[in-house]
Amino acid sequence: MKCSDNIKYLFSHNSVAVIGATPIPNKVSNVIMRNLIDGKYTGKVYPVNPKYEEVLGLKCYKSVLEIKDNVECAIVATPAEFVPKIVEQCGKKKIKGVIVISGGFGEVGNEELEEELKKVAEKYGIALLGPNCLGAFDPYTKIDSIFLPMYKLERPPPGEIAFVTQSGAVGSTIIDMAAHYKVGISKFISYGNAASLNECDYLKFLENDKETKTIILYVEGAKEGRRLFEIMKKVNKKKPIIALKAGKYGKAILAAKSHTGNLAGSYTAYKAAFRQAKVVEAETLEELFDFVRVFNQPLPNGNGVGIVTNGGGMGVLTSDALEINGLVVADFEKSTVEGLAKILPSYGSVNNPLDLIADASAEGYERALNLFITDKNIDILCVILLTQTPPIDERIIGVLTKIKASTSKPMIVIAVGGSYTDKYRRVLEGYGVPTYGYPDSAVKALKKLVEYAEFRRKM
Amino acid sequence: MKCSDNIKYLFSHNSVAVIGATPIPNKVSNVIMRNLIDGKYTGKVYPVNPKYEEVLGLKCYKSVLEIKDNVECAIVATPAEFVPKIVEQCGKKKIKGVIVISGGFGEVGNEELEEELKKVAEKYGIALLGPNCLGAFDPYTKIDSIFLPMYKLERPPPGEIAFVTQSGAVGSTIIDMAAHYKVGISKFISYGNAASLNECDYLKFLENDKETKTIILYVEGAKEGRRLFEIMKKVNKKKPIIALKAGKYGKAILAAKSHTGNLAGSYTAYKAAFRQAKVVEAETLEELFDFVRVFNQPLPNGNGVGIVTNGGGMGVLTSDALEINGLVVADFEKSTVEGLAKILPSYGSVNNPLDLIADASAEGYERALNLFITDKNIDILCVILLTQTPPIDERIIGVLTKIKASTSKPMIVIAVGGSYTDKYRRVLEGYGVPTYGYPDSAVKALKKLVEYAEFRRKM
Repeated sequence: MKCSDNIKYLFSHNSVAVIGATPIPNKVSNVIMRNLIDGKYTGKVYPVNPKYEEVLGLKCYKSVLEIKDNVECAIVATPAEFVPKIVEQCGKKKIKGVIVISGGFGEVGNEELEEELKKVAEKYGIALLGPNCLGAFDPYTKIDSIFLPMYKLERPPPGEIAFVTQSGAVGSTIIDMAAHYKVGISKFISYGNAASLNECDYLKFLENDKETKTIILYVEGAKEGRRLFEIMKKVNKKKPIIALKAGKYGKAILAAKSHTGNLAGSYTAYKAAFRQAKVVEAETLEELFDFVRVFNQPLPNGNGVGIVTNGGGMGVLTSDALEINGLVVADFEKSTVEGLAKILPSYGSVNNPLDLIADASAEGYERALNLFITDKNIDILCVILLTQTPPIDERIIGVLTKIKASTSKPMIVIAVGGSYTDKYRRVLEGYGVPTYGYPDSAVKALKKLVEYAEFRRKM
Repeated sequence: MKCSDNIKYLFSHNSVAVIGATPIPNKVSNVIMRNLIDGKYTGKVYPVNPKYEEVLGLKCYKSVLEIKDNVECAIVATPAEFVPKIVEQCGKKKIKGVIVISGGFGEVGNEELEEELKKVAEKYGIALLGPNCLGAFDPYTKIDSIFLPMYKLERPPPGEIAFVTQSGAVGSTIIDMAAHYKVGISKFISYGNAASLNECDYLKFLENDKETKTIILYVEGAKEGRRLFEIMKKVNKKKPIIALKAGKYGKAILAAKSHTGNLAGSYTAYKAAFRQAKVVEAETLEELFDFVRVFNQPLPNGNGVGIVTNGGGMGVLTSDALEINGLVVADFEKSTVEGLAKILPSYGSVNNPLDLIADASAEGYERALNLFITDKNIDILCVILLTQTPPIDERIIGVLTKIKASTSKPMIVIAVGGSYTDKYRRVLEGYGVPTYGYPDSAVKALKKLVEYAEFRRKM
């Protein structure tokens, strides 16, 4: 059996051994143990460490070979030098998925040790994730090797976004933001040095993963550029890939090399590959998080946007952003204009953006959006919501989720502000409505959705 | 006396009349009354409305002429048609600053009414703010005509940033974000239609306002383009102006017209004016808020950046952003390299970005930053802080504020994440350290600081 056929065991719902487990607080393997227990891992947890009889109340084993039950997955967090031997033991124990958290391999010049690790994994057909990484997280099975405490880094709910990342730090911050905004995740795969399997294998796996509908890829240096291109091209036709290439220029390239031991490769080549494969390129981390969230929406039929707002200036800024990004501030159909004229205050005028002014309540939004839904010039519903005005209250949540359920047009919300506004954003995101903290961020994401929709229509 | 000489009375610490005051919850003038009372306005509040004897426990007057005490400022929130007469009464009462919240003037085609309002103000030498605006907020005197409830829109603490904005909605969201991050404000001026005074007058006023050190300008359409250019040029030499022009393109220009009744004017002309005056242009709302916060730092002597991080990938992304924005990932001096070699773990390497890896605690940052401070190649300290790692705790706050106090180099913090990270950001911002949620946002702000520093050095 090929190593890559066993990737599913990295997310085992059944059993996991934590090798190097320790009762000492804040140590990597202690945090991992805690997270598996507190996070309510669905299977059995086996701490392994010859030094201890018990870790966090669980019987501790001297080696995996001592465990009598069948074990599907192992998380290794020990000094690098012991790792190949430990993975050998995992092989003998028929553990099929091994996550190596430990650093100290190729990224610090220990290429030999990394090569040894790779050979052991291949000898036993083990799916080896890492080394030098955060490993795996699956909100469905609750497997979790992210060694960051839950009170510091929240875990997102189960969802449809898979995240393949070379950098643990970058990956973890996206997980944290996803959790904050209640954005659901299907699988998190931090692969670090990619000693054996790499992003190509994980993308291939995700192509057929039933929980995954959208894929984020953060890559610094790929080992198999051509293969990556072919796989992205294939997968992206079924499931949109949003990709960020880091280590593009000058000293950033050097920084990438010392980070995971992989050559960053030419950014021009990556850019061309993304473009040809029609992969959605994010140029910054912010874009990565902004873009992926819009892809839970239906694909739009065109680029006409209908905007409703309770703050004029925010409408002006959004129109600017649409013009700059080549989307269209739609002309309302006659029936829409007539319908809107009836609901606007006497001093309002029927234009797109439709300015309901600060007097607007949830009902105003509902009536306007119901007209937008039937307007053939409008492909996308853009709701600007200043939650700070007196008449806006929680009824707006009900209105927006009802609108969303009653249309096949994508809908997004722009809500700018502080803590109070953020609560609305969290609730709406949790209900599947992408929300943005700035007009420009929202529009850039919409542009990517429109482009991807065009690509899929032409297929 | 000229109207503009009385601008200071718009921020009176002494006395304010609220004309149109009502006990009906959620009405504009009720919210304003509440905010003055709950916000602990430093002077006396006089509700004025012939319909009531009392509003929120305060004696209510039939007109301002009935008030026996001297009154410096009035806030008017009544239907538009009554406003000129009310302002006439204010004139007779010798009220020097009048804030007109009411809409229904030039922005809906009532140019005549707006002209009438202007004439009355000029007749009495009144500084008239508005109409069709949120008016004024001053965290020092607690004058506050922002008709958004405090539980929905927090108010920022006293500080050094003044904000002149044509759009109330845009202005209020910045106020909200500033409050969330504990960014201090000196004056908030939402001027809407600018019937009498406009952004030129307010900028001139702020030039000599002792609390103000940095100015934000949000403008859709200026009435006096040439004058604005001259004033910006003069003021910006003393106090950096960060400006956003909205209503740039196509339908956004139309939206701006129907918003405050002002013609948006050519964006090309604005852009040229900003460039010539060396005003810091923000192209988006996000940039506006990102850029202004870095200007509380000392101006750097050059563009060399020293980066310390506890997450490798975040260092790579920051390096990319620096390269793209023409800043320099500094080469460490020999003494820095030697000093750093002593503090790094054996498997770490001394490069910029300096990767302390996830093991780093506050002490690691302190030792690294102390070496950065004396390194002549480093003009700017860039701290990437993943608060999510186990060893990072509140000691880092003490370390960073100590470092900041001991150097004349600017320092910024990049901290990406969810709620836990956000708490650190809020504390650090409150202590005068600008923090950013993404590497790219931070670097774009630094670039503006470097450019402005160059401009000031050349003066």
